[in-house]
Amino acid sequence: MSRHAPSGPDLSSAAALLAAVRDGAAGPADIVAACRRAVAAREDQVGAWIALDWDAVAAQAAALQRRPDWRRLPLAALPVAVKDIFDTVDFPTAYGSEIYAGHRPAADAAAVAALRAAGALVIGKTVSTEFAYWKAGKTRNPHDPRHSPGGSSSGSAAAVAAGMVPLAIGSQTAASTIRPAAYCGIVGFKPSHGLVSLAGVKALAGSLDTVGVFAGDVAGAGMIAAVLAGRPDLAGPPRAAGPFSLRLAVAEEWAQVDAGALARTRQAVARLVAAGATADEGPCPPPFDTLARTQAQIMAWEAARDLAHERLVHGDRVSGPLRDLFRDGLAIPAEVYDDACARRDAAVADLDRLFDGADLLLAPSATGAAPRLEDGTGSPDMSRAWTLLGLPSLTVPLGPGPGGLPLGLPLGLQVAARPRRDRFLLDAAAWIESVLRAAA
Amino acid sequence: MSRHAPSGPDLSSAAALLAAVRDGAAGPADIVAACRRAVAAREDQVGAWIALDWDAVAAQAAALQRRPDWRRLPLAALPVAVKDIFDTVDFPTAYGSEIYAGHRPAADAAAVAALRAAGALVIGKTVSTEFAYWKAGKTRNPHDPRHSPGGSSSGSAAAVAAGMVPLAIGSQTAASTIRPAAYCGIVGFKPSHGLVSLAGVKALAGSLDTVGVFAGDVAGAGMIAAVLAGRPDLAGPPRAAGPFSLRLAVAEEWAQVDAGALARTRQAVARLVAAGATADEGPCPPPFDTLARTQAQIMAWEAARDLAHERLVHGDRVSGPLRDLFRDGLAIPAEVYDDACARRDAAVADLDRLFDGADLLLAPSATGAAPRLEDGTGSPDMSRAWTLLGLPSLTVPLGPGPGGLPLGLPLGLQVAARPRRDRFLLDAAAWIESVLRAAA
Repeated sequence: MSRHAPSGPDLSSAAALLAAVRDGAAGPADIVAACRRAVAAREDQVGAWIALDWDAVAAQAAALQRRPDWRRLPLAALPVAVKDIFDTVDFPTAYGSEIYAGHRPAADAAAVAALRAAGALVIGKTVSTEFAYWKAGKTRNPHDPRHSPGGSSSGSAAAVAAGMVPLAIGSQTAASTIRPAAYCGIVGFKPSHGLVSLAGVKALAGSLDTVGVFAGDVAGAGMIAAVLAGRPDLAGPPRAAGPFSLRLAVAEEWAQVDAGALARTRQAVARLVAAGATADEGPCPPPFDTLARTQAQIMAWEAARDLAHERLVHGDRVSGPLRDLFRDGLAIPAEVYDDACARRDAAVADLDRLFDGADLLLAPSATGAAPRLEDGTGSPDMSRAWTLLGLPSLTVPLGPGPGGLPLGLPLGLQVAARPRRDRFLLDAAAWIESVLRAAA
Repeated sequence: MSRHAPSGPDLSSAAALLAAVRDGAAGPADIVAACRRAVAAREDQVGAWIALDWDAVAAQAAALQRRPDWRRLPLAALPVAVKDIFDTVDFPTAYGSEIYAGHRPAADAAAVAALRAAGALVIGKTVSTEFAYWKAGKTRNPHDPRHSPGGSSSGSAAAVAAGMVPLAIGSQTAASTIRPAAYCGIVGFKPSHGLVSLAGVKALAGSLDTVGVFAGDVAGAGMIAAVLAGRPDLAGPPRAAGPFSLRLAVAEEWAQVDAGALARTRQAVARLVAAGATADEGPCPPPFDTLARTQAQIMAWEAARDLAHERLVHGDRVSGPLRDLFRDGLAIPAEVYDDACARRDAAVADLDRLFDGADLLLAPSATGAAPRLEDGTGSPDMSRAWTLLGLPSLTVPLGPGPGGLPLGLPLGLQVAARPRRDRFLLDAAAWIESVLRAAA
């Protein structure tokens, strides 16, 4: 699916770009130049970046080429965008908050260190909502600048969708990878909870926070996840070919999904069934039907504690919505939080009942297409439950949805597998991607 | 049990000190002065501190007294020692490594922010082994300077045991709270995994790392844990009076325990039984009998990833044992790590079989008394399994053990409860403490 621009390397596919690096057709200098042109062309409209420093990128590229056999590295010379909640030694790191404007960490986050060691070039830091919660930054949806890119990994999703970089990293505590990826029409992958180190990532809610990735396709998501997790087997061609059994387990938050998104989801499922999958749709059994609310309780309790320094020392410099989250988290009685944790533990121990014999769960990736900027970054509710359960989940683009918007706004199909079945999820998602692309 | 020194406030009991603050008998200035005298008297021999700054302490004390009704705060004017792996804005934070010598974090760790908000005074940073792993710092056992204080929270345990501060915080990934507390003859409490925020604490192995506390008695441990967790109910008088049913579930690591420690443990259990408890001892059922090995695998895998920046960028500045841990962690196949995680999950789901009807598990807190300095910081094996399972655990001092050492070296009795039963564990530990003190 890659289109090779006449003026330089193709940034739209990580796999194609890596192949070009390996056969000598592309090198760090022309790849960085292509990034720089793409940023120059789109950044004014999209606003994906909070920190760019082409001298720092040139220094990384020079260091890369001094390494022996650098073209064989798993992400050799691949440009990566890094959400501003990851510590970086060579770019300022503000966690989406004025409190930390200009902050220079002493170390790279573990994920960033892993990317650099794998040959990736960190192009810059991308816009995060304030501490990966609610308050939006400057980023606009690359498909229509009147619309939100989603949050909280707003800039990472937009940078990939706008063709500025082939790969990006972000995070998910409720829906901060899946939702912006869906709104921006790209692949977003949230690995199993615990698969990727959170060292050096600003915490929002420790038991939920998960590193996520963005790419133009499923193969790219697997390539970068493999490096982040230190699991080379996540990269490379699929190993499971299907047929896959799919289940749409309808929870209470589905009532918020707009009719167009629901219709496009079912249309996609019909195409997958026509290609050999089996699928069923039915109500989620309790307690799985209300886990989105459980996630919200746990997130509020933990955010009030994980952001204790900001709450207690800089309370006047955080946004109203974050103050509200702190207030809510502090108002939750300990026994309510403990009950929520117990509900989660019981649900994780009983996942067979949720999957009901199916390989994969499916759902709309969000309640609809990207909202208009003035309406916020969209609802996280469609991903809360699966984040709570620690499931690996991934959104495959469904292409423009209904609504008569000028350029059309994409939707996404959300797919989840059992915990730690990340390789299987990537295999199945690659198949789903191929079926849906053939149908497009 | 507190002894009131004629020259100033008594630092040995957090509860007594807080009472003195509340009734106006003690204030920040004389408390800090008492700390300073105790540090001057003992620090040359003990070496508990890596960073001290009395001007910074005076600034905290002055700020405290500007707060309305500050004497009512839950830790009003109580001096606290903070392990060097916690970020602090007013003390350098080096994580026990030369790599970060002089590093000044931009924010306090969430735990430190919570302590300050509760009125505590951070006296300084205490010696940690390198990144809370193996390589010892300068600290010596306050009971005998030829012996180790244990690791990795060496300085925090020693500072409390030497009477320099009534309270301290540390961490536990394998045994880094329980073991030094036992070696130093004080109470160490590792709350349930996830009870206290890890934000701003240097990660060693993310799924195991837990904030721990040190105090002269169980009441003090509850007071500081209540503040750290944002759970006021952990402080205050016991609510469960027993009788308690105790179980010594013998796992393979018990084979390492020396005869003296085993005899003292059984003697303590006999006293508890004489005071009304029931107790039984028998082999741990599989898979619980080998979980110490499972913990070691998970720790090695995660340490190699959580410390990726240090491993990849500063590999020449880490110790040989840490390099070995990285090598071991990188050599573990993904399926072996995944199996270890699955064993843990299955064990957590099956804890009833481990407790076998008992309220509490008991074990020696370490394999014996503190080793000599040249022999390292001691074996963590007696706490690995319970850390892996996320159980709240606590060590109660058993007083000097056998061996004819000049001053005698303490041992500890390790007690654990089911996950999130922290209040119950503190209640039971207070009872155990009272029985063993009466017998002493």
